[in-house]
Amino acid sequence: MSTQTNGTTMTNGPQHANGSDKERVVIIGSGNWQVLSTLGSAIASVAAKNVLLHHELFHPEVKMWVFEEDYEGKPLTRVINETHMNPRYLPDIPLGDNVTAEPDLGKALQGATALVFVMPHQFFRKALDGIKGKVSQNARAVSLIKGVDVHGTKIQAYATIVNEELGISCSSLSGANIATEVAEGKFSESTLGVPSPDGFEGDPDTLPDARLWKPLFDTKTFSISVVADVEGVGLCGALKNIVAVAAGFIDGLGWGSNSKAAIMRIGMNEIKDFSLEYFPTTRAETFLEQSCGIADIITSCLGGRNRKVAEAMVKEGKPFQELEESMLKGQKLQGPETALHVHEFLAARGTKRPGGYPLFDAVWRICYEGAKPESIIDKL
Amino acid sequence: MSTQTNGTTMTNGPQHANGSDKERVVIIGSGNWQVLSTLGSAIASVAAKNVLLHHELFHPEVKMWVFEEDYEGKPLTRVINETHMNPRYLPDIPLGDNVTAEPDLGKALQGATALVFVMPHQFFRKALDGIKGKVSQNARAVSLIKGVDVHGTKIQAYATIVNEELGISCSSLSGANIATEVAEGKFSESTLGVPSPDGFEGDPDTLPDARLWKPLFDTKTFSISVVADVEGVGLCGALKNIVAVAAGFIDGLGWGSNSKAAIMRIGMNEIKDFSLEYFPTTRAETFLEQSCGIADIITSCLGGRNRKVAEAMVKEGKPFQELEESMLKGQKLQGPETALHVHEFLAARGTKRPGGYPLFDAVWRICYEGAKPESIIDKL
Repeated sequence: MSTQTNGTTMTNGPQHANGSDKERVVIIGSGNWQVLSTLGSAIASVAAKNVLLHHELFHPEVKMWVFEEDYEGKPLTRVINETHMNPRYLPDIPLGDNVTAEPDLGKALQGATALVFVMPHQFFRKALDGIKGKVSQNARAVSLIKGVDVHGTKIQAYATIVNEELGISCSSLSGANIATEVAEGKFSESTLGVPSPDGFEGDPDTLPDARLWKPLFDTKTFSISVVADVEGVGLCGALKNIVAVAAGFIDGLGWGSNSKAAIMRIGMNEIKDFSLEYFPTTRAETFLEQSCGIADIITSCLGGRNRKVAEAMVKEGKPFQELEESMLKGQKLQGPETALHVHEFLAARGTKRPGGYPLFDAVWRICYEGAKPESIIDKL
Repeated sequence: MSTQTNGTTMTNGPQHANGSDKERVVIIGSGNWQVLSTLGSAIASVAAKNVLLHHELFHPEVKMWVFEEDYEGKPLTRVINETHMNPRYLPDIPLGDNVTAEPDLGKALQGATALVFVMPHQFFRKALDGIKGKVSQNARAVSLIKGVDVHGTKIQAYATIVNEELGISCSSLSGANIATEVAEGKFSESTLGVPSPDGFEGDPDTLPDARLWKPLFDTKTFSISVVADVEGVGLCGALKNIVAVAAGFIDGLGWGSNSKAAIMRIGMNEIKDFSLEYFPTTRAETFLEQSCGIADIITSCLGGRNRKVAEAMVKEGKPFQELEESMLKGQKLQGPETALHVHEFLAARGTKRPGGYPLFDAVWRICYEGAKPESIIDKL
């Protein structure tokens, strides 16, 4: 009952995947990773309001799979269920009384028809083993996972992997979304990429998966715009980290605002051209006009870990691996790794873009080949 | 010997407008206005190097018309010609020995074939009286003037006005170009919009006016990209100031990075759509992909006077007219004025854009109608 379109599988079933029942939402977060656990909680707080508002469409409970950990002598899930807050990852923000934290993945997935994946990409493959076989084939998913999965000449966005591995329709949600600001109700935008028939040129808001996910996420202060481009939305969230590293180098070099704006512009164009070259269903406007594109590039180049560590690489003259230890307590930085993946991919596949992807290449050379940060502009 | 194309007049004459002679460059700056006098000097320092490098194309002297003023008891032009620096507007940066400051506009224009206009838009009409009749009809111009000229239902970029008033071909140069960073040789980019035949789809670098201006401005650290879109380049430089005011409101409200990135994105799209609606020769990619578009929007929303005064409007609860007095010593802010012009223009002409231009409109309402800054997102 599914057709492969636009880089993912569309479910042709009824709008409510579980027949006459209402959609049951589960946020599949994963703890012990600050940024995305915070985003998972923020998204839960948004969804918790919207399932009540759109009660004709949703079951009133939002489940949140939370990796169990100790919080001041109590299990974190119990603290969340008693206080309706997540004191570890999103202190002082009420999640909503209808959010239930569940440490058991199988239980969390029971009956769920609307799966929201919010986890670091490196945990996803491991989590898959616990998920496979537990998901209803009528369920649909949306991925907030940042990253691309590269094996030799194959490169994939995570929504495509969810779709392939679980056999369910999967959308993407990404944007300029610093989690605490979303949770505090400060005006934010995000882009929802949904599956569409090949060559679709209609109003993306009318697509079946838009009718599920937009009501779940859209609020006056979390403004969702829909595009018929699942992969484009996912790719932005991964590739922007390369650009953020480049922006950090500019900060470290003290080259100023003109340079930094130039790097963001050039980076955006490389992201767009790379995506259009290798993902034929992606659309230029996803990168150029949407929150998941230019707006997220801007926030990542102004704040964020990738920018910060890259700046320190230049100022302290240390490799990023050493700074991951000292600045990130050993957590992995996504920008250099993504630059490496893209480099390997391009080495295997080649490119038709005149001049190649000089900014992506420079970030790889500086991170892995000992090139000087000043060389970043040499081929631009 | 000229044809109206692409919003301006193309000279069909020889590549060297003055026949067998070399191109003679004059920078038509205007003193007593910090930002653009600094940019004029920065541009002079770039051009001074390039006329020597491309000696087959250019006469080796770069003239700079400078509004005469006193500098520590001496005429500023004499100080510039003796020290080859502009201590008032660009201290410590050598302009080049081949730059000559000239206080007399008529003398500065004598024999000039390559006119570079760098002045505040409000001085331009006045300066025109001194310029008309003194310019060779074989000369060509490039405008770095920011602003649009609005009278009722008519709205024009300054390159178009130069073209109409002086009857010479006029290009536009604009980008993320903080002047001191350009002069210090920090990596910067800029966009050159040149006249082209209607429907031109070739390589803009091959267009006649690109062959004049690109060699004059392009260096390794001031990277010029050419587009066949004179008006688009000029419009960005004016309309971005409305967006910078909006970004300043967000800063004043303390709404954070997601909001600010959203405002830049929405602003960019309104600039693009407004330009495409009323200037049919403009091209979407000028706004979305070029330095004069998104990159200049970014720098203006992060730094700059418009952003700063707008932030103070919110924090101090004062109208911008009062802050112009206290923060800018009475100089006029461009953003609110441009928002007013656009509002009057739209009131006179109407729009086919669904929902109109809500960000432009909100800036006008907040600046002139006493609307609350918080209302900025009401119609987005």
